[in-house]
Amino acid sequence: IAKEVAKLLEMKAQLGGDEGKHKFVLKTPKGTRDYSPKQMAIRERVFNAIVTCFKRHGAEVIDTPVFELKETLTGKYGEDSKLIYDLKDQGGELLSLRYDLTVPFARYLAMNKITNIKRYHIAKVYRRDNPAMTRGRYREFYQCDFDIAGQFDPMIPDAECLKIVHEILSDLQLGDFLVKVNDRRILDGMFAVCGVPDSKFRTICSSVDKLDKMPWEEVRSEMVGEKGLSPEAADRIGEYVQLNGGLDLIERLLQDPKLSQNKLAKEGLGDMKLLFEYLTLFGITGKISFDLSLARGLDYYTGVIFEAVLLQQENSHVEESVSVGSVAGGGRYDGLVGMFDPKGRKVPCVGVSIGIERIFSILEQRVEASEEKIRTTETQVLVASAQKKLLEERLKLIAELWDAGIKAEVLYKKNPKLLNQLQYCEETGIPLVAIVGEQELKDGVVKLRDVATREEVNVRRESLVEEIRMRTSQP
Amino acid sequence: IAKEVAKLLEMKAQLGGDEGKHKFVLKTPKGTRDYSPKQMAIRERVFNAIVTCFKRHGAEVIDTPVFELKETLTGKYGEDSKLIYDLKDQGGELLSLRYDLTVPFARYLAMNKITNIKRYHIAKVYRRDNPAMTRGRYREFYQCDFDIAGQFDPMIPDAECLKIVHEILSDLQLGDFLVKVNDRRILDGMFAVCGVPDSKFRTICSSVDKLDKMPWEEVRSEMVGEKGLSPEAADRIGEYVQLNGGLDLIERLLQDPKLSQNKLAKEGLGDMKLLFEYLTLFGITGKISFDLSLARGLDYYTGVIFEAVLLQQENSHVEESVSVGSVAGGGRYDGLVGMFDPKGRKVPCVGVSIGIERIFSILEQRVEASEEKIRTTETQVLVASAQKKLLEERLKLIAELWDAGIKAEVLYKKNPKLLNQLQYCEETGIPLVAIVGEQELKDGVVKLRDVATREEVNVRRESLVEEIRMRTSQP
Repeated sequence: IAKEVAKLLEMKAQLGGDEGKHKFVLKTPKGTRDYSPKQMAIRERVFNAIVTCFKRHGAEVIDTPVFELKETLTGKYGEDSKLIYDLKDQGGELLSLRYDLTVPFARYLAMNKITNIKRYHIAKVYRRDNPAMTRGRYREFYQCDFDIAGQFDPMIPDAECLKIVHEILSDLQLGDFLVKVNDRRILDGMFAVCGVPDSKFRTICSSVDKLDKMPWEEVRSEMVGEKGLSPEAADRIGEYVQLNGGLDLIERLLQDPKLSQNKLAKEGLGDMKLLFEYLTLFGITGKISFDLSLARGLDYYTGVIFEAVLLQQENSHVEESVSVGSVAGGGRYDGLVGMFDPKGRKVPCVGVSIGIERIFSILEQRVEASEEKIRTTETQVLVASAQKKLLEERLKLIAELWDAGIKAEVLYKKNPKLLNQLQYCEETGIPLVAIVGEQELKDGVVKLRDVATREEVNVRRESLVEEIRMRTSQP
Repeated sequence: IAKEVAKLLEMKAQLGGDEGKHKFVLKTPKGTRDYSPKQMAIRERVFNAIVTCFKRHGAEVIDTPVFELKETLTGKYGEDSKLIYDLKDQGGELLSLRYDLTVPFARYLAMNKITNIKRYHIAKVYRRDNPAMTRGRYREFYQCDFDIAGQFDPMIPDAECLKIVHEILSDLQLGDFLVKVNDRRILDGMFAVCGVPDSKFRTICSSVDKLDKMPWEEVRSEMVGEKGLSPEAADRIGEYVQLNGGLDLIERLLQDPKLSQNKLAKEGLGDMKLLFEYLTLFGITGKISFDLSLARGLDYYTGVIFEAVLLQQENSHVEESVSVGSVAGGGRYDGLVGMFDPKGRKVPCVGVSIGIERIFSILEQRVEASEEKIRTTETQVLVASAQKKLLEERLKLIAELWDAGIKAEVLYKKNPKLLNQLQYCEETGIPLVAIVGEQELKDGVVKLRDVATREEVNVRRESLVEEIRMRTSQP
């Protein structure tokens, strides 16, 4: 039907002469959306929870431009580079919209010769992907990144990143979740001992990365069929990638006759053990799983990698329509800053990115299902009048309130009806009405009405600010 | 010199073989900048003041994508359209980066058939201008917009916009300021009675707009020489545009034998009178000036226009290097939404845009000159140890603090020296240190140290959270 309509509209557009002036499409670009006040209210709640957590961990905040020199992004994203938005060459520099916040962060560190920082950055990034907007996937979307850069003792910052994921997902009450953890070195060591040739590490790794969407049999046939891996090597990988667990599994693999002989794998497993000891001190191992099937796509990871997924809830009809998938991810990337430094000086980094759009989609659907009323303003009081010809008095009073820091509104009408003024409060959730009338003006008072209880009391004008503050202060 | 260097670098790049790999320029695009944590701290202060004011006036918040369909922006900015950033055609829709927040707002209203809203929007906009970055002018910069859309009684929302400008500029303590006010209808009426042909209204208006940068003589010769206006007409305009004042001037012009005969001018002057009556009730006429030389460039204004300027302060060496100019502006645009509506339905709008970048530049320079120390984190306590081998105890304690909502940090070292830990607090402004040691662990206490006074007390572990909260609560 949509196609038919589009065809008809096109035909109509071709026919229309003068009418054509107004015939442009009233929409936002593909894969983008506006946020209404209600959606913004939900979005700000989520941001608040996340920023509070980042600040609790002592992070500073930075910002970078929405576009970078094209060459800054070149060679950082492998296959995905084709999804980068370029700007038109209008004379001057060649520019691209940022694809994530990690590469601009690395550029920032190298450019300012910073070797030590803990920062967060919340901003929009751009990918010319095929969006699945019902599942919270867009071409313009927010990333909320927290990263720790610097030369430190092993796994302490890495453990803090996982603690942060745990805190945020718990705070937001999205339901049960699991954080899968692995290490690029363990993966590479595993590939080596399974007999994967060095040249095939990356491509086999990207096959493993599909295990969350495909069954092993399909991944295996991709490895053997498309990528020319020997069936024996594939089967050996198959045995490893089905493993997941905690400290016990790490210990077992440290004893594994093949893996323990591989230097990279041994390093990775040793660090993984340390990581789990720190996570035990943090009290969060219950939701962390060492999972050999976790690979993550991006090229730049060099050590620990992780990804948080929401677990499908039983008996929950609300969230069934939202695809439950990855809501946070990250890892260690010790080589990225060095790619920008003229002398190749490295700055080790580890970080986490919160997948805010998917979280936002879930919360938005939940709010809609619950019929919870969300206020989109914080107005404490409406300044109203019961009689005509009192606009001047309303304006005088509201200026007094504004100057005292009270959040106040007034209807932009000379003579609004009292009923309309009260209705406006009901609709927008304003809790109080300050009513001026002839008698009140004579008596030096204002009638203060509680919208919910409909109770009215006269308050002396000089006590009004204090009274409003008292009645609307958060408990 | 810069040219010479560029030439040499180019030659070097051509010579360099393998070296060429790292030879890209490490910079942000022309006219853009990163924000460091310190700059972000100042920026957030300013945003906070502005958002607090917008919320005080009952505004909702919306967001729109950073790019729009190219045709959405077409025909809205007159001459300035050449400054719009286009995206490269990579297949699909033709897109442009937004040039301001007003046109996307109008598109949003028309698209969602909203006829009544009071909203703010704070976001970056993009202009391929020649930036003067020392004066706070960039190609990527923030706008903070507050707009009231809807059919209301005259001048009440317009007066509120001016009240908002007054509140924000007072709150930010940027020094003395003046808000110039005029009306497009008064300008057009004035042009008519001065003998400007209808076809020259827009171009003569843009000459008048230059009066804040050029003396009248130059503007006059542009009108007569370049734009072919008769010298008599120009001289008549010259008499009007030097006028400014308050209610008295409005009354005088309402009696002006020529202006009072012009329908548009009379309407404009009548509304201006009403506006000044409301501004008197708000108590802000002291900083408002009705100024016939104010024109404002954008095509879409239809009624009241205004612009706030900072007044140069005597004896202030700090701000001399910052060009003191417009820090806020706005006006009424009753026709813009109708340009997007398929049936041309109008939604009257009036709004104000705060020039945050210039304000930010001034405050940044002021902070630098004052040597005020700005904290870039909010950390309340550093978890430290005086002896070795206490990493585990530090991690256990900090997890307890985080889980209780305390903002806490720990150095990412196994065995940091106490001196280094204390120094970190001095540098970053952390007020408290919680020290764990063998003895304290045995006694079930933590040593709490005040960084400023160097006083130390033992606090029972179960009272630690409460004690930290008490000592770091804002007065």
